[in-house]
Amino acid sequence: MNLHGKNIIGDKLVAGGEESFRARNPLDNQPIEPEFYQASLANVDEAMELAEAAFARFSETSGAARAALLERIGEEIVALGDTLIERCHAETGLPKDRLIGERARTVGQLKMFADLVREGSWVDARIDTAQPDRKPVPKPDLRRMLIPLGPVVVFGASNFPLAFSVAGGDTASALAAGCPVVVKGHEAHPGTSELVAMAIRAAVAESGLPAGVFSMLHGPGPVVGTALVKHPHTRAVGFTGSSAGGRALFNAAASRPEPIPVFAEMSSLNPVFILPGALRERGAALAEGLKASVTLGVGQFCTKPGLVFGTGGKDWDLLEQSLARLIEEAIPATMLHAGIRASYEKGLVHAAQTERVNLVAQSKQAPIAVKTQSEAVIMKTDARTFLQKPELSEEIFGPFALLVTAQSLAELETIARGLHGQLTATIHASPEDFPAAALLLKILERKAGRLIINGFPTGVEVCPSMHHGGPYPATTDARFTSVGTAAVLRFARPVCFQNFADAYLPGALQNDNPLGIRRLVNGSPEITMSHESENLRNRDAKR
Amino acid sequence: MNLHGKNIIGDKLVAGGEESFRARNPLDNQPIEPEFYQASLANVDEAMELAEAAFARFSETSGAARAALLERIGEEIVALGDTLIERCHAETGLPKDRLIGERARTVGQLKMFADLVREGSWVDARIDTAQPDRKPVPKPDLRRMLIPLGPVVVFGASNFPLAFSVAGGDTASALAAGCPVVVKGHEAHPGTSELVAMAIRAAVAESGLPAGVFSMLHGPGPVVGTALVKHPHTRAVGFTGSSAGGRALFNAAASRPEPIPVFAEMSSLNPVFILPGALRERGAALAEGLKASVTLGVGQFCTKPGLVFGTGGKDWDLLEQSLARLIEEAIPATMLHAGIRASYEKGLVHAAQTERVNLVAQSKQAPIAVKTQSEAVIMKTDARTFLQKPELSEEIFGPFALLVTAQSLAELETIARGLHGQLTATIHASPEDFPAAALLLKILERKAGRLIINGFPTGVEVCPSMHHGGPYPATTDARFTSVGTAAVLRFARPVCFQNFADAYLPGALQNDNPLGIRRLVNGSPEITMSHESENLRNRDAKR
Repeated sequence: MNLHGKNIIGDKLVAGGEESFRARNPLDNQPIEPEFYQASLANVDEAMELAEAAFARFSETSGAARAALLERIGEEIVALGDTLIERCHAETGLPKDRLIGERARTVGQLKMFADLVREGSWVDARIDTAQPDRKPVPKPDLRRMLIPLGPVVVFGASNFPLAFSVAGGDTASALAAGCPVVVKGHEAHPGTSELVAMAIRAAVAESGLPAGVFSMLHGPGPVVGTALVKHPHTRAVGFTGSSAGGRALFNAAASRPEPIPVFAEMSSLNPVFILPGALRERGAALAEGLKASVTLGVGQFCTKPGLVFGTGGKDWDLLEQSLARLIEEAIPATMLHAGIRASYEKGLVHAAQTERVNLVAQSKQAPIAVKTQSEAVIMKTDARTFLQKPELSEEIFGPFALLVTAQSLAELETIARGLHGQLTATIHASPEDFPAAALLLKILERKAGRLIINGFPTGVEVCPSMHHGGPYPATTDARFTSVGTAAVLRFARPVCFQNFADAYLPGALQNDNPLGIRRLVNGSPEITMSHESENLRNRDAKR
Repeated sequence: MNLHGKNIIGDKLVAGGEESFRARNPLDNQPIEPEFYQASLANVDEAMELAEAAFARFSETSGAARAALLERIGEEIVALGDTLIERCHAETGLPKDRLIGERARTVGQLKMFADLVREGSWVDARIDTAQPDRKPVPKPDLRRMLIPLGPVVVFGASNFPLAFSVAGGDTASALAAGCPVVVKGHEAHPGTSELVAMAIRAAVAESGLPAGVFSMLHGPGPVVGTALVKHPHTRAVGFTGSSAGGRALFNAAASRPEPIPVFAEMSSLNPVFILPGALRERGAALAEGLKASVTLGVGQFCTKPGLVFGTGGKDWDLLEQSLARLIEEAIPATMLHAGIRASYEKGLVHAAQTERVNLVAQSKQAPIAVKTQSEAVIMKTDARTFLQKPELSEEIFGPFALLVTAQSLAELETIARGLHGQLTATIHASPEDFPAAALLLKILERKAGRLIINGFPTGVEVCPSMHHGGPYPATTDARFTSVGTAAVLRFARPVCFQNFADAYLPGALQNDNPLGIRRLVNGSPEITMSHESENLRNRDAKR
């Protein structure tokens, strides 16, 4: 595998500033060749200028052209074959099977956005035709659709080195919208980033698009990342990572002369409420499900359940015992990098030192530090302690969960009301739990972006109905999702065209609907395409 | 007319803090009775607590119930009859005919949002059905719709004392979404605000809704307004006003522990580009149109054209002369309040003192200061001066426009590229101007929320295709509109329901589509309601 280690600025490979770094294999804690060059601030400027210059042409491309680009990116990624999987495995310690699955998801996402923009209705086209004879004033012809925002900065995430990194959901949705993308690669997997970035670069070139449609820079978030967010050409930012990092970028964007949106996905404890009927009905299955969800991917999912609430009693004790046995058998596994492991271990120590927080169980097998391994851990406390200690509501990223015993359903409701914003909230309920569940769900609806009944939060479907975004601090903007087709809406804004002759209008808004998309005409859907187009053509003939 | 002058906190009338103020009639600069009480910070807290408490029930109301509320508000406003028009006229100096028209628009907006939520499809319902046999993992049932954000704070605007004040577009769209509203009344028309607020209060009571659904407080923006924006229960803010005011609220919201969205509409010069063919074809009509648009409502519209660009020559000189004659005949008229007039006059002095900026014409008749009158004014400069002096790109709110002469179409493009964000941008073009117009439009598409060909920017239609929102500093969030049906989207966020039995789901997402709304099922529209419902029922039976 030949990696150049350079920053990729359009079609140029640039050694950048004076600093360099190497990836480190979490499986043995050894550095991996080659060296990667950190971008200079001049490189930031260069990449953003190229992106801005590319925008005019890229934003004009058809949905079909952008779909072809996205699919070609997928093909280029697949063509990397084992090289990508090997390098990614070495940089992240993630099992190859998982990475093969994640690659499929990544390519699937690219394909999903390709389908979306090829079909074209996502632009939410609306047409209100003129009423020249209206009193007291004539009504002009008005037509509105979504257009791309401009250059978008994407931060690669460490926990999804393929599906939420260089060619992940943020990049795919921004390109789908018609926005050039500049990625700030994650320091933990620079080789993976380079391989994928070169694949995108090749796809851009093969598609005959301006090279500035895509760039990728290496370097530390507080320097290179902040400079990208503050650059005047940047129009929006996608980020997945820590609360501190996300909020810093949000603050940087909000304090710009022209503020821009930051879509940061940051921190979520994904509370799970287990109601008495469900507990009685299937306590053992719940213990299995919890164990699997908490330890999946060594707990390194943004939807890992970190808090489990119940109302105590014999069944609750049995659940605790079953879960304890399963957790003890959980084999310590390698985390993504030493930094994540250190944070996890620190979080565990902190939790363990908290008064009235007790250990339930941990992996019997000891983790090996040089292999960046961590143990699965379950602790427990009572609801009063939980309510009194806000630090217990902070995310511990890794295979950890806290069981919290409440005295009553009313206390569960109090807990729910006090929760921070979350990506997900889950309730396990049997039919007899219905009234309590309905009440809890109403409270949790204000706290989370996705509500789950009798399931587990890990496993985020990629589809039109998915909403992966919740009230702060889960994300900085609960109105938008980073997963699913609606993710494209983050990178577009409406423009209204008033009194335009057909020839001046974008295809999506022309009378005879040449793109054949779903539109709203005078407030109602165009019922049959040919019939409506006929009407519109007649109207136009009269203008 | 009996006005109590108090703050309206749900069903309570509260004298509030220690400060009070009176409105002033701009037509004679005399104070008008009665005194109005400024809200205390305790009142802010009280209003927000009531709004939060009301949210649970209000957010659960059906679209039909919210529609009924909105329509009843309209009826109550109409029932105020001449009392409202008289008081509003006295507080704003706006002609009664204009106010009668604005009242009709206000009631029309309420009706439009009522129709929108009664129909119900605005919630963007999406359903992806389960695939229990999918490999490698089963696909869960996922359903997503928009739900209301929570309590919304609305700032009354001075220039639309009815249509963008207490029961204006922001309030109507927030209530339509299911969000309780707390209005900070504008200091310039407190009596109008009280009358309308009492109408809303009556409508809320008659509808059997919790009183906390609506409150209105008096007081200065930097104190009462900022406290409302910073209150932990506030979930979004609507504002129309100055750049300084809007940015201060944006900053306050962005620096909260949990940031919230601020939809501030602030400042726009609404540039008009006149291309040579159009100028030759209809210079005299353009002069008439410009005069009418610049002086409409004494230039106090956010869409008033403040910059007019052309490429010089004989026809341009003729346009200037025609416009000059029309402006000289424009009768000075009363502005909304002394503060706006003072800013306007200061802006004029500043512009007049700018090197190479020259007076073209002003109203011959002198304005009378005690009547808060201002004169219409046109100045001119050359493109080079315009490009060199950023202060010429700042809004002068009132009946003023600056003519800017460029040397060439290329210079017009340079100007267009350098523009700040705008609500609107206009091009006047004849068929021969097409290539130049197309190029300019592409540039202006990035600068404005609404593009107009051969028209004038004043006159903002209220309809689904309207987009009233543009890149900063026109608004703080170009992705959202404050006018038209899409305004409701500012106050909602998606929630995804995973694996819910029908009985737990909101009606909008239930299998048999009891609300009969448009939905996306497995990525495609539900084609025929009965057919699709049949399918969904069958699917459900299998679960």
